[in-house]
Amino acid sequence: MSRFLNSSLKGLVPYTPGEQPQNKKYVKLNTNESPFPPSEKALDSIGRCELGDLRLYSDPVCRGVRERLARVLGVETENTVVTNGSDEALNFFFASFCENGVVFNDITYGFYKVFADLYSLDYTEIPLLPDFSVDVDKFIAINKNVVIANPNAPTGLALPLSVIEEIVRSNPENIVLVDEAYIDFGGESAVPLTKKYDNLLVVGTFSKSRSLAGARIGYAVGSKELISDMHAIRYSTNPYNVNRLTLKIAEAVLDDNGYYMNNCRRIIENREYATAELRRRGFSVLDSKANFIFAKSEKIPGEEYYLRLKEKGVLVRHFTNPRICEYNRITIGTKEDMDVLLSATDEIFKELSI
Amino acid sequence: MSRFLNSSLKGLVPYTPGEQPQNKKYVKLNTNESPFPPSEKALDSIGRCELGDLRLYSDPVCRGVRERLARVLGVETENTVVTNGSDEALNFFFASFCENGVVFNDITYGFYKVFADLYSLDYTEIPLLPDFSVDVDKFIAINKNVVIANPNAPTGLALPLSVIEEIVRSNPENIVLVDEAYIDFGGESAVPLTKKYDNLLVVGTFSKSRSLAGARIGYAVGSKELISDMHAIRYSTNPYNVNRLTLKIAEAVLDDNGYYMNNCRRIIENREYATAELRRRGFSVLDSKANFIFAKSEKIPGEEYYLRLKEKGVLVRHFTNPRICEYNRITIGTKEDMDVLLSATDEIFKELSI
Repeated sequence: MSRFLNSSLKGLVPYTPGEQPQNKKYVKLNTNESPFPPSEKALDSIGRCELGDLRLYSDPVCRGVRERLARVLGVETENTVVTNGSDEALNFFFASFCENGVVFNDITYGFYKVFADLYSLDYTEIPLLPDFSVDVDKFIAINKNVVIANPNAPTGLALPLSVIEEIVRSNPENIVLVDEAYIDFGGESAVPLTKKYDNLLVVGTFSKSRSLAGARIGYAVGSKELISDMHAIRYSTNPYNVNRLTLKIAEAVLDDNGYYMNNCRRIIENREYATAELRRRGFSVLDSKANFIFAKSEKIPGEEYYLRLKEKGVLVRHFTNPRICEYNRITIGTKEDMDVLLSATDEIFKELSI
Repeated sequence: MSRFLNSSLKGLVPYTPGEQPQNKKYVKLNTNESPFPPSEKALDSIGRCELGDLRLYSDPVCRGVRERLARVLGVETENTVVTNGSDEALNFFFASFCENGVVFNDITYGFYKVFADLYSLDYTEIPLLPDFSVDVDKFIAINKNVVIANPNAPTGLALPLSVIEEIVRSNPENIVLVDEAYIDFGGESAVPLTKKYDNLLVVGTFSKSRSLAGARIGYAVGSKELISDMHAIRYSTNPYNVNRLTLKIAEAVLDDNGYYMNNCRRIIENREYATAELRRRGFSVLDSKANFIFAKSEKIPGEEYYLRLKEKGVLVRHFTNPRICEYNRITIGTKEDMDVLLSATDEIFKELSI
């Protein structure tokens, strides 16, 4: 650390992303990427002409993407803002709307706490119940800003839309941010509720269901006023936050929505398959509505399972938090990926004679 | 504005980027982009395979780019951080190092003031002298953090390295950030001084001399400790801040440095040509060391010149600040672009009989 950092940041603990090995030797089931590449039409959208045009700045209004996003989500363009991954949308929210404090679950996307610390916010972590479900009553009329991942990560559990609505309705003087990074894998989106409630902000990403993790594009949807604030923050930090190629390919992705929604159906099938097969092997697996599952076995400590899978070339995500350290979060890949995971698991159990 | 925005942000005035028309009908000399596309080798670096890999997150360490950048700049990898455009590097600086206050010129890159307002910083704007040169004495031993664009924008005037060093040396308890967005067009880079002074942070961009404005990549260079802080901020806001394709093409750009440095020589030639030709037509043109010139004519108000050029399909940058509203900032393009500008100017003068 340098001697120049602001005093409020001296103890900052940055977010730890999942391992990103820069070779391809792993079956990579650790960062919830899609096993499917962008569609042919999306790949066709970037040619030598678009690469040559990189000399020019990107469209700061992001009009093409926002118009298509609005169409796909059933809202108006003015209800959308496009960000450099959904992390940037979350960053804007924590930086600019949370002076009255913010609450979120204790077991959830780890970045919420990092943002809350970064901005020295008054925040409360609501413990998940012992079965990892959300303690919904604690969020009703709490009179603070709320951030809730639905489905939640790393559990994969989803709340019904009626519960989300009750949280939004009961906190009219604060914003409820619903992080829908994983919504396309079986959850119910709260986007339609943004027409009814001006205190609801829904955040989404192209990184999971739309196969663009490496392109860095996310978005937020909300009332015209909330979105106008988000744009003001965007224009006060980085008006060209999303690059030209990403804007171009994201337009093509939205024009080809069926391909991605079909991929989601395949991932859901593979999830149900992997869940059943792991349960058949004695694992506890939560009922996931995401593109990952959260699983543990009484037969092997979580960390050992992670390390032995890694040795066998299968990368999953292990967390050191004591409450969840017996679990691993396993991204759903292709059917073949799942079979590699299951075979590796069988081998590990055999080697340990369990 | 929504009713939820933090009270400190209620009066926020966002940065106004230059016009970005999404058609190609203009000779675009308003946002200091390069007239030259990325090199053939850079264009070759992105194929269908790289596009397919967009399903995977980018390398959060940005190793490939940082290693090459270090080689090109003559520093070590650990002295570099890569950001989503240099605006993000500036953002990190204002957000995280300026609790003791910051000073910058009154006429300079407009984003400094936006950041200072965004973070409610104690800041002072030092007026440029009447000839638009920097009032250097005011920066010596000022005992605040300093941000200085060298060459400055929109004037194009550069400070010699000895003056930059004196500012750095005389403010050892604060950071001096030198914004070198335009350094490759004739200025002297302060990067070598980062080895000698731990309070110097040099910020650069691929948007101007490296033909990648639309790819969004910038960087900062400084002591290991300062850069380590910058990485901590990066990992606390957006660890995947630069997308895969941009990392890939930026590597190729750095491997092909000669092409870009040669383009800079051509732009310098075109700048000297345009400067001489405008002066021949009675314009006052500052001695620019950047890829733009700052020019005014006693014969025509700055705004009128801008509007008439726009009518004729030539876009330049006009500022409404009364101190500089008689000037226009004109990006240096190809020789042909400059001839279009000069012909349009001659036509305007003829139409107005001046």
